[in-house]
Amino acid sequence: MNPLTASRDEPAKASTSPRKPLKVAIVGFGTVGSSVARILTEHPPEGLLLSYIFNRNFERKRKSADWVPPTVEWTSNIDDILSSDADIFVELVGGLEPAGAWIRSAVESGKSVVTANKQIIARYGPELVAQAHSRGGHVAFGASVAGGVPVISGLQEGLAGDELVELCGILNGTCNYILTRIENAGISFADALAEAQKFGYAEANPSEDVDGYDARAKITILCRVGLRCAVSHSEIPTRSISVIEPVDFEYAKLLDCTIRQISRAEKTAGRLLASVEPTLVHSSSPLAGVEGPQNLVMSTGKFGGETIFAGHGAGGNATAVAVVSDLISIVRLRQIGGVAIHENGLARLSVSSDFTTRHYLRFTVEDEPGIIAALATIFSKAGINIDSVFQKPGFPASKLPFVITLEPCPTSLVEESLKQINQLRFLVQPCVALPILD
Amino acid sequence: MNPLTASRDEPAKASTSPRKPLKVAIVGFGTVGSSVARILTEHPPEGLLLSYIFNRNFERKRKSADWVPPTVEWTSNIDDILSSDADIFVELVGGLEPAGAWIRSAVESGKSVVTANKQIIARYGPELVAQAHSRGGHVAFGASVAGGVPVISGLQEGLAGDELVELCGILNGTCNYILTRIENAGISFADALAEAQKFGYAEANPSEDVDGYDARAKITILCRVGLRCAVSHSEIPTRSISVIEPVDFEYAKLLDCTIRQISRAEKTAGRLLASVEPTLVHSSSPLAGVEGPQNLVMSTGKFGGETIFAGHGAGGNATAVAVVSDLISIVRLRQIGGVAIHENGLARLSVSSDFTTRHYLRFTVEDEPGIIAALATIFSKAGINIDSVFQKPGFPASKLPFVITLEPCPTSLVEESLKQINQLRFLVQPCVALPILD
Repeated sequence: MNPLTASRDEPAKASTSPRKPLKVAIVGFGTVGSSVARILTEHPPEGLLLSYIFNRNFERKRKSADWVPPTVEWTSNIDDILSSDADIFVELVGGLEPAGAWIRSAVESGKSVVTANKQIIARYGPELVAQAHSRGGHVAFGASVAGGVPVISGLQEGLAGDELVELCGILNGTCNYILTRIENAGISFADALAEAQKFGYAEANPSEDVDGYDARAKITILCRVGLRCAVSHSEIPTRSISVIEPVDFEYAKLLDCTIRQISRAEKTAGRLLASVEPTLVHSSSPLAGVEGPQNLVMSTGKFGGETIFAGHGAGGNATAVAVVSDLISIVRLRQIGGVAIHENGLARLSVSSDFTTRHYLRFTVEDEPGIIAALATIFSKAGINIDSVFQKPGFPASKLPFVITLEPCPTSLVEESLKQINQLRFLVQPCVALPILD
Repeated sequence: MNPLTASRDEPAKASTSPRKPLKVAIVGFGTVGSSVARILTEHPPEGLLLSYIFNRNFERKRKSADWVPPTVEWTSNIDDILSSDADIFVELVGGLEPAGAWIRSAVESGKSVVTANKQIIARYGPELVAQAHSRGGHVAFGASVAGGVPVISGLQEGLAGDELVELCGILNGTCNYILTRIENAGISFADALAEAQKFGYAEANPSEDVDGYDARAKITILCRVGLRCAVSHSEIPTRSISVIEPVDFEYAKLLDCTIRQISRAEKTAGRLLASVEPTLVHSSSPLAGVEGPQNLVMSTGKFGGETIFAGHGAGGNATAVAVVSDLISIVRLRQIGGVAIHENGLARLSVSSDFTTRHYLRFTVEDEPGIIAALATIFSKAGINIDSVFQKPGFPASKLPFVITLEPCPTSLVEESLKQINQLRFLVQPCVALPILD
């Protein structure tokens, strides 16, 4: 060996002179916004100064938030914020517009942006990050997935050394609440939803949550950050949890499973498999133990195997912690004149939800002889093997639910057969088909 | 509001010119070292170049590792590495010396260091980080705690916005294996240990693991990173798992608990409570579900509540992922001329293990009338309330194990009473006292 000396790049020395704190503007003073303000006030991180708060008709909010330092300027005019000397624009109003236009303006004017807005990041994340980067700013979105669970930084930094191939998680607390209530109280989806709405866990229009669009935005972001795949949210198939009935939990229990809304993605030979749908998970899985607003993400790496991140997926304080953590990361980057991890170099793969998996099929039929034989014939012709058949007693013959589970096969094959099966006259309603996670 | 414009600090622009990759020297080509080499070869991260490998008598290893690129220089002389142009010194030999001296040399010569060496980081972490920092280098130690579980970066970055007040975890896979075997196979500690040694899960001298010193080094590091407390590893009390017998699991089961080696720390009014010891955990706790080499850390924040990190705590590949993630973080910092998070400003608190907690006490006695009364009198005088008494049938009267659980009280109070109790003549062996985690 012939050792060379000191030919390597010398690092730039970090500035040790104290710098002015970065001025923070909170845009949207709701549950999360006020929690962020409270953390910045009670437990102020070095290098950050809460300077502006935007909210429509802020007077009432300012009155009740008497703990906000008097040096903070309140406004209901977003242009005051966009044209201010705020260094970091913390977008917490949610929704696509006007939040999107505001974020773009902030980025264009060289501000950094911290946002919990999963829909905007799912749609425009990479371009916003690149645009901010080109202007020396940052876009951080740790709060956009799984609230207070530090999964974005975990995948981006802590597991950077692995090649992640699979992500799987519970990313929507509303669905989790509804499914848990159907399971534990034996009530219908409609009743569980009404309850969730009464307690403020679900919106008046619940589609975003129960039909999987909220979780889809989150798994889209995780696909980019964790699997390094370019994917558009609209490419990921979703299925609603509204088809789930108490009887599904009874049958799931016979299989030693429960049912959860599972978001998952798997990078495999040139393809990205991804879906958001109600899924049977074995009772011994960490996913089965997730209750209420808890979120959990499991990642699988080629080298390091499975890693789990879990915690509070919603709630003002937990989400606010993620926002403040992002603020601190920007201070750290700013102190050292750095840039955040950017999103170029994402692989562009074809996207489908055609997982090869076991399936749970719940049929509701008007009973007559030969039903199983008819179904078995169709599956057999498609090359699908039946694994088990369950029929619990106590249901009326006019509307009899029973379950068939299938050995692992591509979901597309099952869907093809179900098209045919759903035409059969003994079916009272379409088959409820759920994957079984192994 | 009177918006000001553009008076803020402009960030330094990130360099976009391609820089020479950082040269990596792997020091110690054992399980972890060869896994690191394999990841750097098979899945090379941008900006890193595996350049040197040190190992004593490396010839045999080089022969079997024929997949290592021929451009890599092998040596068995550490001075070749220390005087080389390697940018990053990856210390994977373990132990205090000579690893410590080598790391110090590397830091002094301006190299960055990545290490999985918990004992060195527990003892000298803050000074090494500061020393490297002053020379423009970095010391990264993500692999030193919980192997592949990204808990260091999770606490340092993902949860930076919270004020963490409590940490609790399973940090030693060997203890976990042994305790699980005592539980499931009903064998003695000695037999479970012998088995662990046979399978290579435990060292010939198992004290480091079973007496808690390995986990103590890890919780010391987590106290610094997560709770921002300056603590010396020697200040944290440890208790061995060697006192645990199968009967303890039988009694724990009656309490709907299991027994795990728990490392925990809690920041409370001016004090740091910390300990490593066998502990009863409720069967519904995520800690109870941790099996074999799995590690799990739960953090509790003032704002964000509980967060869980879990995954493979040991094994070449999982630990190697943590090492490579640290290498990547150094590339990112180096690209932007930055410094890692340093460790100044840690709070200096008094350390004790005087948690206020429920207790499980297993007495082994030569049976005679009045034993419970004698014990109850002592506890009553100390102001300690008995919660329950369990005595399973089927044990000989000459060596009868039974259990008393106590209502929450300071551990110091229990220890005081046990000094007196352990003198009582009917005791066949000292009482086994374990905290019950709530």
